Amino acid sequence: MSQHTQALAAFLADLRYEQVPAAVLDRTEDLFLDWLGSALASQGAHPIPLFERYAEKMGPAEGRSRILVSRRSSSAYFAALVNGASSHLVEQDDLHNSSVLHPATVVFPAALAAAQDLGKSGRELLLASLAGYEAGIRIGEFLGRSHYRIFHTTATVGTLAAAVAVGKLMGFDKEQFINLLGSAGTQAAGLWEFLRDAADSKQLHTAKAAADGLLAAYLTADGLSGARNILEGEQGMAAGMSKDADPRWLSDRLGERWALAETSFKFHASCRHTHPAADALLALMQRENLTADEIARVTTRVHQGAIDVLGRVVVPQTVHQAKFSMGTVLGLIALYGKAGLTEFHTHALTDPRVGQFREKVSMVLDPEVDGAYPQRWLGRVEVVTVDGRTLTAAVDDPKGDPGNTLSRAELEDKFRRLVAFSGARSDAEAGVLIDRVWRLRDTYDLGGLA
Amino acid sequence: MSQHTQALAAFLADLRYEQVPAAVLDRTEDLFLDWLGSALASQGAHPIPLFERYAEKMGPAEGRSRILVSRRSSSAYFAALVNGASSHLVEQDDLHNSSVLHPATVVFPAALAAAQDLGKSGRELLLASLAGYEAGIRIGEFLGRSHYRIFHTTATVGTLAAAVAVGKLMGFDKEQFINLLGSAGTQAAGLWEFLRDAADSKQLHTAKAAADGLLAAYLTADGLSGARNILEGEQGMAAGMSKDADPRWLSDRLGERWALAETSFKFHASCRHTHPAADALLALMQRENLTADEIARVTTRVHQGAIDVLGRVVVPQTVHQAKFSMGTVLGLIALYGKAGLTEFHTHALTDPRVGQFREKVSMVLDPEVDGAYPQRWLGRVEVVTVDGRTLTAAVDDPKGDPGNTLSRAELEDKFRRLVAFSGARSDAEAGVLIDRVWRLRDTYDLGGLA
Repeated sequence: MSQHTQALAAFLADLRYEQVPAAVLDRTEDLFLDWLGSALASQGAHPIPLFERYAEKMGPAEGRSRILVSRRSSSAYFAALVNGASSHLVEQDDLHNSSVLHPATVVFPAALAAAQDLGKSGRELLLASLAGYEAGIRIGEFLGRSHYRIFHTTATVGTLAAAVAVGKLMGFDKEQFINLLGSAGTQAAGLWEFLRDAADSKQLHTAKAAADGLLAAYLTADGLSGARNILEGEQGMAAGMSKDADPRWLSDRLGERWALAETSFKFHASCRHTHPAADALLALMQRENLTADEIARVTTRVHQGAIDVLGRVVVPQTVHQAKFSMGTVLGLIALYGKAGLTEFHTHALTDPRVGQFREKVSMVLDPEVDGAYPQRWLGRVEVVTVDGRTLTAAVDDPKGDPGNTLSRAELEDKFRRLVAFSGARSDAEAGVLIDRVWRLRDTYDLGGLA
Repeated sequence: MSQHTQALAAFLADLRYEQVPAAVLDRTEDLFLDWLGSALASQGAHPIPLFERYAEKMGPAEGRSRILVSRRSSSAYFAALVNGASSHLVEQDDLHNSSVLHPATVVFPAALAAAQDLGKSGRELLLASLAGYEAGIRIGEFLGRSHYRIFHTTATVGTLAAAVAVGKLMGFDKEQFINLLGSAGTQAAGLWEFLRDAADSKQLHTAKAAADGLLAAYLTADGLSGARNILEGEQGMAAGMSKDADPRWLSDRLGERWALAETSFKFHASCRHTHPAADALLALMQRENLTADEIARVTTRVHQGAIDVLGRVVVPQTVHQAKFSMGTVLGLIALYGKAGLTEFHTHALTDPRVGQFREKVSMVLDPEVDGAYPQRWLGRVEVVTVDGRTLTAAVDDPKGDPGNTLSRAELEDKFRRLVAFSGARSDAEAGVLIDRVWRLRDTYDLGGLA
């Protein structure tokens, strides 16, 4: 086993609450609230009830862990499964840029379910979640861009991130973390193929990553051994699922660089690959005082990953697919000034002007944008107006990125909008939840977080 | 989607009990009994109790599906999980040569658990299991040798095979099978890296393949959609996990070729890659009337896959690892005339003569053997005697292969030995189980199969 995996496992075992900067703890709470909103926003929406019914069929009638959308309880495994599915549906959960990992939707479902099951405190939950972010982000960076071309990193790496969070809750030592990575890594799965058909696998992926990671941790705690070099070994993850893996990422500035704090909040309710262009178009239209009618063509200059993920969707057939259609997203921005959940559900497929605008939009690969990716997600658009002018705009930090982040007031507003969208909780209940999350580090009974 | 995946899904949907030749049904029962013995043989052995405890912790206290080793009941998911783990531990479960898939340990746990849950008959169980074998074997062949170099085919392809069996029990149509393959394929995982450390992942792999396949089928029945081209698509299984995939295997002689009937029974209790050489050495020693003492060196001429899988184990530290040590297996054959469960547990690590014999054994790549593999597993050994003679032997059909298969009497004997090894059932109970399996096609209540 290389020094890099060794160092990562030692860091995870040794990480103490007291060594975490206050700003990082604050941000962990921010991310937790943001996640909770995404989970609740999907109540009642396909395919979430399928996972709820599966949990009822296969799991115990009740348990110590909470299923957020239904307010039911179950064992930790099924709570992680359903909460994992539900928090990745509305495309509002967080994203870490350089790893292309959505950490919240895999880390928090597993960590919260296990913390409730094991009677852990808010501080332990925060520390465990931080461990999951730090490990998952570095493993995602390690596997590189070639992995993401075929594999859904949030599914594959998500299994390890979720496992690490639960292992930290259980107080694993270095040796246990090594075994845990082995048992989680050998379960890592998730292919992008489903996107072409707008199939329901995205929710299956996050459900399974959270639940499988939790399973790996419980079995490791009981003595299951795993491959000691699952990341870097000759028949391990990088060997099978990457062409450009770089082990140095695994131990990158452990304890100095807090990767969690680099995580971006999602402002628009669409695939993150559309956000830089959406922000750039919005900036251009505001600067030039343009309306949608005055735009003849939009060329978005993007990185290859955007073309890989978004290129599949030509004419979206579902709201979910619309979130992966660059033209639809820019159409909503141009016509409504935003691309939130409400705009997607009310206008994306039914307003003919959105469909017309979509036809005006194209993507081209831009070497500068591609070279900066995935460390930076640059927004570059070129607009040709109906009266023949060519205008350009550039945004270097899309809204929600660390350099242009959301304030607690903005996060609370987003949370209330997400909860109101599905009606999963009343606005008064949303207020109570917000208050509980901001006091998480002084909470000893996590049962009320549901 | 290609014609090959289409044809496979249509075949699975249309397959009827009445069209299956009697010999194929007989063989399905043979394989079922053989599987049942492997599952029961692992009672009490690490890591099986870990999976039992996990099922107790996360699952319901009781249910309609049976956990074989413990005689407890649970929901179908956990019965599939524990039975999947337990039937791949003692290395006595079946193998299909050209796909390098162990079908029984993934297909039967899922099919039996779902059949018990859904109140299906013995005929429905046999037909569903056959569907799982036919699909799994062809998908394994499709993914090719490059897949098996890094990925544990029984884990990856096993997820799809298990899913298909449960889907057939549920009466899926072609469209449902297409969605099912998508949801199962995107969960397919399992890396060989654990072998180097003799870690417990092999049982985790088969447990998860059976359980994940079952999960995919239950969710598909409830309306979850999956990628429509998960096998052949640009971001599907072959794209991510194979370099030599050939789609023609997917539809190879559907309904004419019964791949299930090509499945080999395991005679020796070791990794199947050791069997051809073990049979050849046994034949040579019998022919020449040689004892172990008279042998100075053994060179086994093998295929590359044997070197990939067995080359990792130099000096075995555990009984399980000993089953992957060519020298240890041949030592048991030379000294005891067989390499069954009892020989492994009593002599493999403790008899110093076995260790000495192990040092006399080497493997070399043989172009003829490698060229025939994986369709045929040829046994070729060269022995140099203490008195300086060089002797060779060749076995073209190792014991247990279709051309040299086990009779029902031999299968019953193997079953009774497996059950007696762990003490999971009395010999009288073993006799009752044998009788029940031979009457499976006339059984309407599968609850008694445990």
